[in-house]
Amino acid sequence: MNSSEFRRRGKEMVDYVANYMDGIESRQVYPDVEPGYLRPLIPAAAPQEPDTFEDIIKDIEKIIMPGVTHWHSPYFFAYFPTASSYPAMLADMLCGAIGCIGFSWAASPACTELETVMMDWLGKMLELPEAFLAGDAGEGGGVIQGSASEATLVALLAARTKVTRRLQAASPELTPAAIMEKLVAYASDQVVATLGTTSCCSFDNLLEVGPLCNKEDVWLHIDAAYAGSAFICPEFRHLLNGVEFADSFNFNPHKWLLVNFDCSAMWVKKRTDLTGAFKLDPVYLKHSHQDSGLITDYRHWQLPLGRRFRSLKMWFVFRMYGVKGLQAYIRKHVQLSHEFESLVRQDPRFEICAQVILGLVCFRLKGSNKLNEALLQRINSAKKIHLVPCQLRDKFVLRFAICSRTVESAHVQLAWEHIRELAATVLSAERGQ
Amino acid sequence: MNSSEFRRRGKEMVDYVANYMDGIESRQVYPDVEPGYLRPLIPAAAPQEPDTFEDIIKDIEKIIMPGVTHWHSPYFFAYFPTASSYPAMLADMLCGAIGCIGFSWAASPACTELETVMMDWLGKMLELPEAFLAGDAGEGGGVIQGSASEATLVALLAARTKVTRRLQAASPELTPAAIMEKLVAYASDQVVATLGTTSCCSFDNLLEVGPLCNKEDVWLHIDAAYAGSAFICPEFRHLLNGVEFADSFNFNPHKWLLVNFDCSAMWVKKRTDLTGAFKLDPVYLKHSHQDSGLITDYRHWQLPLGRRFRSLKMWFVFRMYGVKGLQAYIRKHVQLSHEFESLVRQDPRFEICAQVILGLVCFRLKGSNKLNEALLQRINSAKKIHLVPCQLRDKFVLRFAICSRTVESAHVQLAWEHIRELAATVLSAERGQ
Repeated sequence: MNSSEFRRRGKEMVDYVANYMDGIESRQVYPDVEPGYLRPLIPAAAPQEPDTFEDIIKDIEKIIMPGVTHWHSPYFFAYFPTASSYPAMLADMLCGAIGCIGFSWAASPACTELETVMMDWLGKMLELPEAFLAGDAGEGGGVIQGSASEATLVALLAARTKVTRRLQAASPELTPAAIMEKLVAYASDQVVATLGTTSCCSFDNLLEVGPLCNKEDVWLHIDAAYAGSAFICPEFRHLLNGVEFADSFNFNPHKWLLVNFDCSAMWVKKRTDLTGAFKLDPVYLKHSHQDSGLITDYRHWQLPLGRRFRSLKMWFVFRMYGVKGLQAYIRKHVQLSHEFESLVRQDPRFEICAQVILGLVCFRLKGSNKLNEALLQRINSAKKIHLVPCQLRDKFVLRFAICSRTVESAHVQLAWEHIRELAATVLSAERGQ
Repeated sequence: MNSSEFRRRGKEMVDYVANYMDGIESRQVYPDVEPGYLRPLIPAAAPQEPDTFEDIIKDIEKIIMPGVTHWHSPYFFAYFPTASSYPAMLADMLCGAIGCIGFSWAASPACTELETVMMDWLGKMLELPEAFLAGDAGEGGGVIQGSASEATLVALLAARTKVTRRLQAASPELTPAAIMEKLVAYASDQVVATLGTTSCCSFDNLLEVGPLCNKEDVWLHIDAAYAGSAFICPEFRHLLNGVEFADSFNFNPHKWLLVNFDCSAMWVKKRTDLTGAFKLDPVYLKHSHQDSGLITDYRHWQLPLGRRFRSLKMWFVFRMYGVKGLQAYIRKHVQLSHEFESLVRQDPRFEICAQVILGLVCFRLKGSNKLNEALLQRINSAKKIHLVPCQLRDKFVLRFAICSRTVESAHVQLAWEHIRELAATVLSAERGQ
C-alpha cells in the first residue's frame, strides 16, 4: 500500500471508526458467539498473494464485530472503564507514523522530553508533592508504564535492589540466598497499598500506613489504578492524602482519564532507585549526552527496552479537554453512580454493599448468593447490559461501574429498569420452587 | 471533540501522516536539539480551558518534529529496524476504536481468538514444529507480548515455577530459599539462546544446545527478536533448525515484519507451563466458559492484566502483503546489506567485522578504536545518516543496519559515499597529527 492508497483508506477508516462510535448503542453490548467461533471463518494459513482492503473491511463486520464485547457501549457497566477519546485516537495515529522507539534520549529526544513534562503536568493536576516532579533538576519524576502490574513489579524490584544493597553493605558475610530469605513484602489481600480496589473501590488508610513505612525504612508503593484520575478534582483529592509518605505512586489514565490504553502513570521520589535497579548500557545504546546528568534514558525506568511515543496521547487529551473538561468528565461519572445508588436504595428488595465513593456501585438482592448469581446470569444472558460480579467477604455481589464516555442518565435509568424486571423474574422463580 | 469533528480532524491527520511519510527523506534524520530543549517551549502546566486542534497541529511541527529521530527515514541505519506499514497503521486505528481490554476470552472473544489464529498463521509461515501451534486442540500456542524482554521474563518465571514445583515434590523438606539457591539460569553474554544478536547478528548453535537442555530437563527459551522475521523465507529457515528442542520461542514482528510496535510473538509447547505460573482468577474476571477447556484467557500468559487488540495489525499486514510480499520485503533488505558489504570490501581501508547474514553489516576502518570512534562521531555530527556502534571483543565497530521500509539501493550508495568522504577526513587528520 502506497501513501496515496493510505490517504484514501485512512479516511475510510476514520469514517468507519466514527460510524462505529456513533452507532455503538445499537450494537448488542455482549456477543452471542461461542468459544472457537472465529477459526472456521478464516483460512487456516496466511494468503500467499495479497488480499484487497475491501475484502478486509468486509471481514471486520463479518468476522470481528460479532465477537466483540463493546467496552464503549453506554450499556457496558463491567470491570472498570477503559479510556477512549477522539483526541487520544488522533495522537495514536501520529504516534504510529513517527514510530520511534524511545529507549534513550537520543533515540528520539521529543519522545523522552514530552513524557517527562506531561508527567509533571499530570502530577500537578493531582497536586502530587513536589518531590515526585522532575522539573528542571528534581530527583524524582514520572514515567509511562504499560500497566499497573508493570509499575508494581518495577517498584518491587527497585525496592528489592535497594534493600539488598543496604543489607550487603551492613553484613558483607550474608549470601544472596540468606538475604533473599530476609526480604519481606507486605501487602493486603489486594496487594500493595491500594486506593480504589477493583472489587469495591475501597481505600487503604495511607496516613496510618505511611509513617510506619517511613519509620521502618520500608518502600511504600501506592496503586490507585482506577481511582487516581478522580484526584484531579479538589473534592476527591483528600483520598490521596498520605501520598507524601510513598516512594512510588501510580494510576492508570488509560482507565478513567480519556487517554486510550496503554498509559499507566508512575512517579518516584528518587529516580536513582529505578535507574540503579534496571540500568542497561550496551555500547549500541550509548550516546554522547548520557553521562551529562541532563537527560533521562527511560529504558532504565522499566522492564522492556522498547517504548512508544505514548505521551502524545496525554498531550492531545490534556490540551483538547483542558483540566476543567477532564474534571467535568469525572464528576459526571461520579454523579451517575450516585444516581444509580439512589435508585437501588429506593427498592427495598436490594441492598448497597459498599460505600459509593467514585464511579462504582456494589449492590445485590437481599437474599442468598444463589439468588444473586441467578440474577447476574439473567442479566448477562439477556445481553442488554453487561456487568461482572465480585466477592465481598462471603457475599456474591454485583458491580455496576460507570464506564462509557457517552453514558448518560437515560442509560442508567434503562439499565436499572431492566435489572428490576429480571430481579422480579428471579424472585418469583425462587418463590415458585 | 464529537464524532463529526473527529471525521474532519481524523482525515487531516491521515494527510499529515501521509505527508510526513512522503517527505521524510528531506528531514534531517537526527535532530539538532540539546537536552532540555522541549520544556521551555510549552507551558508549565496543563491548560484549564481547552486548546484548539489547530494549536496542537501547529505545535507538532514547532515543538515535536525538531526533536524527533526519524526512524523511518531511508537514511536511518541505526539499532535495528522498527516496523512501520500503512496496513498496520489502519489496523491500529481500528484497535483504538474497539478499545477492548482482552484479558479474558469473555472480555472480547474476537480479540483472543484472532490472536490465537494469527499466531498459528505466523507459526506456519516460520514452519514452526506442530507442537507450538494451538490448532483446534493443541497443547501449545502463541501469544503476543509487548517486548522480547517481557517474553524472556515470562519464560524465565514459567521455568522457575516448573522446576520449583518439581523440586518441592521430590524433596518436601526443602525451604523455598533453599530451592531458590539451587536454581540456575544459563545464558550467554547476550542472555538466553539467541538467534541474531543485537551487536552483530550472530547465531547460537541450537543443534548443540538443544539436545543438552532436553537431556538435563532444562527449559530452553530461544530469542530471535530481530532475525525471526527472516525465517519466513525458505533460504533462511535453516537458521531456526533446532527450535524443535525449545520450550518457548519468540521474535518481534514489530522489528522486521511490518507490524508496528508493539508485537512480540511468543510460542510455547505446553500452554499449561504459562497458565500454571501466572494464573489469576478473581471473581470479577470469572466467566462461564473458562473451565470448559475450550478457551484461552491470555491474562494467564503474560505479566500485565490488560492487553490491546494487537492481532488486528498482524491480520491486516499478512493479508495486504501476502506471504510473498513479506518474503520479498525481507529479501530486499538482505540484498541491500550485501550490496553495502560489497562496497565496504572494495575499499582496502575498511574491514568487515562479522559475517553478513541478514540485514546488518558490522564494519570499521582498519586501525585503532579511536580512529573509528572519530569516524562515527563525524558521521553522527553531520546528521546525513544515522548509525550506532557496537563492541566486538576489544574492537569498536560501526553497525550499518538496513532499517527503513522505503530504503533503496540509491540511499545505500549515497550513505557509503558519505562515509568514505568522512573517512578520508578522519584519516588525513590522523596523518596530520
